[in-house]
Amino acid sequence: MKIQLWSLGKNNEPYVKEGVALFTQRLNHYFPTEWKIIPQPRNTASLPPEEQKNKEAESILALLKKDDYLVLLDERGKMMNNEALAQFLQARANASEKMIVFLVGGAFGVNDAMKQRANFTWSLSPLVFPHQLMRLMLAEQLYRACTILKNEKYHHT
Amino acid sequence: MKIQLWSLGKNNEPYVKEGVALFTQRLNHYFPTEWKIIPQPRNTASLPPEEQKNKEAESILALLKKDDYLVLLDERGKMMNNEALAQFLQARANASEKMIVFLVGGAFGVNDAMKQRANFTWSLSPLVFPHQLMRLMLAEQLYRACTILKNEKYHHT
Repeated sequence: MKIQLWSLGKNNEPYVKEGVALFTQRLNHYFPTEWKIIPQPRNTASLPPEEQKNKEAESILALLKKDDYLVLLDERGKMMNNEALAQFLQARANASEKMIVFLVGGAFGVNDAMKQRANFTWSLSPLVFPHQLMRLMLAEQLYRACTILKNEKYHHT
Repeated sequence: MKIQLWSLGKNNEPYVKEGVALFTQRLNHYFPTEWKIIPQPRNTASLPPEEQKNKEAESILALLKKDDYLVLLDERGKMMNNEALAQFLQARANASEKMIVFLVGGAFGVNDAMKQRANFTWSLSPLVFPHQLMRLMLAEQLYRACTILKNEKYHHT
């Protein structure tokens, strides 16, 4: 199974870059992992949120393959503790998924078409975080889940 | 009301330093805010977790003033969304608290004496994060809560 981490928008916050690189590199020891930073569709910044979300969804849906298992990160999704996340990842690998895509949505969330395409909607927290910080949190959590599956020492219970 | 952010342990992860500094500086525009990084008590790293937690609690309880309002961050605490966090902060200020202390515990959590001293136990997420990353998440969330209270543009609902 390969992991792809998709995120919409800019990639310009130096305060998260180093951490994202660090944990992505570590995660890559367990599953081949790649980031895809999807640029904000052009000329949409002044549109109303609903139309922005529609344009964003078009860009993202065009990039997804039919068999990609899509995990949408959204604060209204289902929450999991560390053990449950580890088991979730293991279950996807056991089901022979070829590609699992974790998508951090745009600033206004995602539209209904995206929600329907998602195989699973995951809430890391009931709190909203800046989406560049979410990238760091996501990479760290997936790395942590892999260490749990391998019984390694990183995670204290 | 003043805010203090207390955290136990090291302060050596370059990947969070810049972000913590950024959001602490922003938070400081709303409430005078200071970090206190409490060193791990000496010669405790090889002790069993329970004894480590007891030593840590002694260091922390010795630093707390009687009137300090202590918010303990723990994944088993009560969760709040962004609006609820903003209202929580406002309620403390309305109650004329002089000092609110947010404490990020050590790697093994905290002992019962600390739990009893806490005025509130707050879970940012059911997931455990590295405590240096928790510092960044905490500073960003408190800043975000202040912008919500002031109706500023940072937070999209």
